[in-house]
Amino acid sequence: MKLNVVKNDLLGYPKYIIYQNPEMFSFSIDSMLLADFVDIKKDTKKIIDLGTGNGVIPMYLTLSTNANIIGVDIQEDVLNLAKLSVEENGLSNQITLLNRDIKGLSCEYKNIDVVISNPPYFKYKETSIVNKTDYKTIARHEVLITLEEIIMEAYKLLKPRGCFYLIHKPDRLTDVLYYLRKHNLEPKKIRFVYPKLNSKPNHVLVEARKQANLGNLTVLKPLYIYKNGKWTEEVLKIYNKGR
Amino acid sequence: MKLNVVKNDLLGYPKYIIYQNPEMFSFSIDSMLLADFVDIKKDTKKIIDLGTGNGVIPMYLTLSTNANIIGVDIQEDVLNLAKLSVEENGLSNQITLLNRDIKGLSCEYKNIDVVISNPPYFKYKETSIVNKTDYKTIARHEVLITLEEIIMEAYKLLKPRGCFYLIHKPDRLTDVLYYLRKHNLEPKKIRFVYPKLNSKPNHVLVEARKQANLGNLTVLKPLYIYKNGKWTEEVLKIYNKGR
Repeated sequence: MKLNVVKNDLLGYPKYIIYQNPEMFSFSIDSMLLADFVDIKKDTKKIIDLGTGNGVIPMYLTLSTNANIIGVDIQEDVLNLAKLSVEENGLSNQITLLNRDIKGLSCEYKNIDVVISNPPYFKYKETSIVNKTDYKTIARHEVLITLEEIIMEAYKLLKPRGCFYLIHKPDRLTDVLYYLRKHNLEPKKIRFVYPKLNSKPNHVLVEARKQANLGNLTVLKPLYIYKNGKWTEEVLKIYNKGR
Repeated sequence: MKLNVVKNDLLGYPKYIIYQNPEMFSFSIDSMLLADFVDIKKDTKKIIDLGTGNGVIPMYLTLSTNANIIGVDIQEDVLNLAKLSVEENGLSNQITLLNRDIKGLSCEYKNIDVVISNPPYFKYKETSIVNKTDYKTIARHEVLITLEEIIMEAYKLLKPRGCFYLIHKPDRLTDVLYYLRKHNLEPKKIRFVYPKLNSKPNHVLVEARKQANLGNLTVLKPLYIYKNGKWTEEVLKIYNKGR
């Protein structure tokens, strides 16, 4: 497990150390964008990150909140990297890491203010050419949990009018909006992420609210990653938050 | 009715005359964008435009197809303007205009290749401060028909794997995608229309296919209307099609 573990100091000031193992799971820009998209209120006290991986979302959130943050992941080896990082950055008081299945979490945890998830993006079929036990496969494909199952669990975890945030691929947008409404988490804000001007979006950020009135979705202005081959100012600001 | 009828020659070459009455209904850029978004195949034989108003969508489509096009509108006075335009432009052989309710249309018409609609954008409540009999109210508010009712009728009109095209406001996007999937018209392409760079979108164009596999939605690159205070090249091209 320690083989190939790299320390990464991209995040924040005082610089947080993020342990990751490229063979296992590397945090990507998706998680940063999602963490930045989360709207944390002053009275936000409890946050849960479903499928936290190496813990980058909880750590990013500590830059803007004192709320208690729980990160959950079923993959023990990946979560151990998150534990290393959380300890080394002195965040053990604020971040709790749970190695367990997302399904059934709401039996123990309820009345959460904010639930977040960067879920597996790809549908899984028995014919999919993937290794079902591979770390990356589990993080990327719906092998162990589907989008609808994550949404159902988020609903049960949240307090009334609590918010669920997720990022997904635009080709799953109908699934995302359909299952959110079906399970009484009404989409309220979405933002598309474009690699550059005049390209198709490659991600979509979504905010949904439990038991809210239907409709009144705000589609925000685009978030562009690159302009003229360089990161845009907005993305640099997200990366350098707290620095 | 003839009072305030204006001739408008924005569209195409040889220039089509579009009759409209500003007190009643004026075609807007929405209809042009929607007509241009429609993907007409060589074997497209029958097209229906639900809520055709003064007929701008059927007339625009004649610039790129020889298919038979039916425009339907419940508002007789508005449809009479469409009839004037269709006759004056010599398009009576290709375009049929029906003054009737959209609901129940599928009892008489079936197996349509392409159904189009620029529907009323706003939800109607008994408390809405609108005049229910006003021409513009009926065109803009769901007084006489709702989005879900239009989608259900489109489904029944279409042939298997036929396509439904609509334009709507982004704040209704969840409604649009939810009802389309619910009624077995799977969204396949959407495109957001932005008034300018770095603004929120103010319209969304949608293509859905009857009885198609779920998922695989393509979110196309943005369509910008203005750049530096002038129409973009793409919009000019749409306006000047056939000229």
